[in-house]
Amino acid sequence: MKLCVKTIVRQVHIYQSKNLTRDAIKTLNTHDLLQSLGFVKQTQSGLVHWLPLGLRTLNKISRIIRNRLEKDAKAQELSLSLLSPQALWESTGRWNNGELFKLKDSKGSAYCLAPTCEEEVTSLMGNFITSHKDLPLTVYQIGRKYRDEKRPRGGLLRGREFLMKDAYSFDKTKGDAIKTFAQMNETYGLIFQDLRVPFVSAWADSGDIGGDMSKEYHFLHESGEDTVFKCGSCDHVSNVEKANSYPQKFNDYEGDVNVRYALTIDHDTLICLYYPKDRSLNWNLVLAAIENDVDTSLAGMSNEEVLGLFNAGKNEDDMMLSSVIRVMDCRLNPRSNYPDFPLKQYLKNNFSQLDDVSLVDAEEGEICGACEQGKLSSAKSIEVGHTFYLGQKYSKSLNAKFTTRNNTEEFCEMGCYGIGVSRLVGAIAQVTRDSLGLRWPKSVAPYEISICAAKHDGLSEEIETLLQDWESETLVNQDDKASLGRKIAMSHSLGIPVCIIVGKKQWPFVEIEIRAPYMSGKWHAEFDQFGKEWGWTVENADTDSPQKHRAHKDHLIDVIRVILTDM
Amino acid sequence: MKLCVKTIVRQVHIYQSKNLTRDAIKTLNTHDLLQSLGFVKQTQSGLVHWLPLGLRTLNKISRIIRNRLEKDAKAQELSLSLLSPQALWESTGRWNNGELFKLKDSKGSAYCLAPTCEEEVTSLMGNFITSHKDLPLTVYQIGRKYRDEKRPRGGLLRGREFLMKDAYSFDKTKGDAIKTFAQMNETYGLIFQDLRVPFVSAWADSGDIGGDMSKEYHFLHESGEDTVFKCGSCDHVSNVEKANSYPQKFNDYEGDVNVRYALTIDHDTLICLYYPKDRSLNWNLVLAAIENDVDTSLAGMSNEEVLGLFNAGKNEDDMMLSSVIRVMDCRLNPRSNYPDFPLKQYLKNNFSQLDDVSLVDAEEGEICGACEQGKLSSAKSIEVGHTFYLGQKYSKSLNAKFTTRNNTEEFCEMGCYGIGVSRLVGAIAQVTRDSLGLRWPKSVAPYEISICAAKHDGLSEEIETLLQDWESETLVNQDDKASLGRKIAMSHSLGIPVCIIVGKKQWPFVEIEIRAPYMSGKWHAEFDQFGKEWGWTVENADTDSPQKHRAHKDHLIDVIRVILTDM
Repeated sequence: MKLCVKTIVRQVHIYQSKNLTRDAIKTLNTHDLLQSLGFVKQTQSGLVHWLPLGLRTLNKISRIIRNRLEKDAKAQELSLSLLSPQALWESTGRWNNGELFKLKDSKGSAYCLAPTCEEEVTSLMGNFITSHKDLPLTVYQIGRKYRDEKRPRGGLLRGREFLMKDAYSFDKTKGDAIKTFAQMNETYGLIFQDLRVPFVSAWADSGDIGGDMSKEYHFLHESGEDTVFKCGSCDHVSNVEKANSYPQKFNDYEGDVNVRYALTIDHDTLICLYYPKDRSLNWNLVLAAIENDVDTSLAGMSNEEVLGLFNAGKNEDDMMLSSVIRVMDCRLNPRSNYPDFPLKQYLKNNFSQLDDVSLVDAEEGEICGACEQGKLSSAKSIEVGHTFYLGQKYSKSLNAKFTTRNNTEEFCEMGCYGIGVSRLVGAIAQVTRDSLGLRWPKSVAPYEISICAAKHDGLSEEIETLLQDWESETLVNQDDKASLGRKIAMSHSLGIPVCIIVGKKQWPFVEIEIRAPYMSGKWHAEFDQFGKEWGWTVENADTDSPQKHRAHKDHLIDVIRVILTDM
Repeated sequence: MKLCVKTIVRQVHIYQSKNLTRDAIKTLNTHDLLQSLGFVKQTQSGLVHWLPLGLRTLNKISRIIRNRLEKDAKAQELSLSLLSPQALWESTGRWNNGELFKLKDSKGSAYCLAPTCEEEVTSLMGNFITSHKDLPLTVYQIGRKYRDEKRPRGGLLRGREFLMKDAYSFDKTKGDAIKTFAQMNETYGLIFQDLRVPFVSAWADSGDIGGDMSKEYHFLHESGEDTVFKCGSCDHVSNVEKANSYPQKFNDYEGDVNVRYALTIDHDTLICLYYPKDRSLNWNLVLAAIENDVDTSLAGMSNEEVLGLFNAGKNEDDMMLSSVIRVMDCRLNPRSNYPDFPLKQYLKNNFSQLDDVSLVDAEEGEICGACEQGKLSSAKSIEVGHTFYLGQKYSKSLNAKFTTRNNTEEFCEMGCYGIGVSRLVGAIAQVTRDSLGLRWPKSVAPYEISICAAKHDGLSEEIETLLQDWESETLVNQDDKASLGRKIAMSHSLGIPVCIIVGKKQWPFVEIEIRAPYMSGKWHAEFDQFGKEWGWTVENADTDSPQKHRAHKDHLIDVIRVILTDM
């Protein structure tokens, strides 16, 4: 795609705070920085208008995602209606979600503003899929979604209106669906590689969405709200809800012991969960230990309430026959100080005990539960994507069936896959910004190149002509009142990867300042080979940002091409 | 842009009615045809999901609009939040519009789903525009809009959720704003030329939006809900609300006469409007005749009510002093049968009469009011765009001011400009479809080329390889079960402009069937020059659709390039 856009910065300017000081650039939080630099404008808590610069970055991210989904995941693009009728959400029991924005039309029909589209897409595709020949099939859309967050925060990271890529896959069998899930996770890897921001993918709890396989995609950053654990040996990464860990030494904890009571699904067995008092019980690990036979709907109750429920309607004989399972976290020492046992009477026969399981959230430095060898390190992170294997949860509620080769009817096996597109703008800004301002990777920068010149001496125009046929988008700062230094600082704060500085003094040499993060340094090889020929010199190549290059104007394009390729 | 998309029709197929007969294609209304062919799926009255084929067409239209706006109107793209707060709409008095979809968030704040964005954009830009140096400025967005139509109809032509391009211009002076308005109308002309669908632009009444200059863009079609009048001499086009016409012969009407009473703005003067009983009074013409001194808020009252209001509180002396204007439509003959005059007493001095003005909606065959020479012809039409000069209506309500060169403060002069993007999909489908199905202009076809082959004999693959580097998007029908005839019929019904038919019999010659409407026929010249060399023959060149060509495979690309250029 050949585009040579020359945008007069005076136009961009009007969206920006005109007196953005160096200090403000350093100290503003990222959302305010994005606002001050004219990327977005917050209108209400959790709602923003996208301004030209922000929209360009948003669209570049969408384009990267779209390309990969079509090419690598063979997904077809749709665009579903935002107004989703009440009945559909009642069929899956999700109408009473407190975060739905709801409205009624003039005829009294109720709708929500779709926060996600499992209901709509399953109903839509269920109407079209009839035969096994129609499968596999993956569809996606990139569109606005809505969630009435009680406490929207972090600007683009958690808005009430946000741009989302949501994809949905339909398969014949669980095996096929899991293959599709794996293929989509590969595609996600390629998408995040294209974005050029380091990421981790973590096994995750599938939460409300359903199913039992789920992966999250995170950028590691100290400001993140999430925590992920990474094994130093097997590279297994998981989020805190899903991380299974062992202590470096079993039965080594001698402090106070907490107990948490739970019931099996039939409420016939009392489960007593013992774990160190200074740790947090992890219900996913509990579920794994008891093979999912736990009524998790009681997780919000107090111990007394759970006991009350267990004892309710039982006479003394019944109590004698009650089963009890004691589950001991592997960190506990038998000599520890255990709470009193809650039942006065019970038969030893009805009593069992599980030892050496891990029941609590992992901690930095513990042993990886996956390989049982490596040490876990934890990191704060920002979640930017999530993939789910859904099974038949939605196809059953919404009756999405197909006829098999043997003429029987089966429910489709589904998966769903999200990426927070507007969230990515905030997250990338957050993890890449530095003291000079934003610092976009080339892939998502609103412009790849900016040209800054001191005066109208015709030199800037000569460089513009040189770049005429360049396949990149170039921003020319034509603000007559700004000094050259101010123009360069503006280019740097906007996070434009390549800043070309033209001045009479150096002419016919031109300075190039580089802001892009995560460069590989591959340009060194070409520098060594062609540097002399191209009049290419580097001042202080170790500077992280801005890195300062200089080239003869006749080879400017050669040098920029090499540098851009490296970003 | 080089894209070679090969989509397997089996995938597209699943969105389509599998048994779409030739008869159904002929008789279905256009919205149902678009649904049956898998372009959209209606979910509720006035709401649709966009399926892959429809979305491709929608996106192509958006791209054409975007390119022209950026290049020719120097407009910058934004994307505003859909949730627009109550207070903003109250400041312009538009909150009580019955067609707003309204909702409250969990904190009780009320929003509407924006049906248009004058309020938001004026408020946003008003915050940024401070100096005359920030002007002129034009912004636009392409996004979903919402209108709670009581009776949504015509599918995409009048939905409750629709994709809209809305642009807004800000200028320093009325003169500048009118220049911008003219430039935007030129850009609209280019956009509709790019779409390759014949259109007319008509001077229009600016209705609710405000301002006093307004143009509509229409496709002429017998199914349209609108009527436009075109002069055979001066080419002036206007819609019925704005059309001024004269009868072929003045004072020639001798039938019954209607009278309509109105009052001047100060309610001191009674206006008696006389016009032929078989015609409709046109309030815009009335306003023009009385130089806008008419209280149009009384237009809904009966004659008796207007008289009551005029007489209210007046004694006999007052009545004697009442002014009266009689306005006579130029068609009326003095000998006509006039209704009784409503006032019993009045002074001749206070009585005036306007003759020879036109007060009624134009009719086919009358004389153009603009040039007073040509005859008017009327046509049914579908409105697809509208431009407005707004003046200071919104900048005043929302306080969008700038500092002039002389350091005074002025309100911005504004314009707004809409195009119904999703409406265009329905409108283009409607005006181009024929008995074989849809018939997209190349500019908006979901694919430009389709390849149909009888069997897997390697020939289709050879053609695909030939088209590999083609800059066009190609659809390959790989449905093994469909006969060649069925594949061709499918390509034709989907409205793909170029259908390449590959078969062993003709090989190495290939048939090309053309569906695109509005071809200029320029290909004839190249046919005459290169036909022999390229093995290019045409069977029955006068057939409108499908037009049948044939070419040697080695020159297939040459022939297709010529044909596509002509579309």
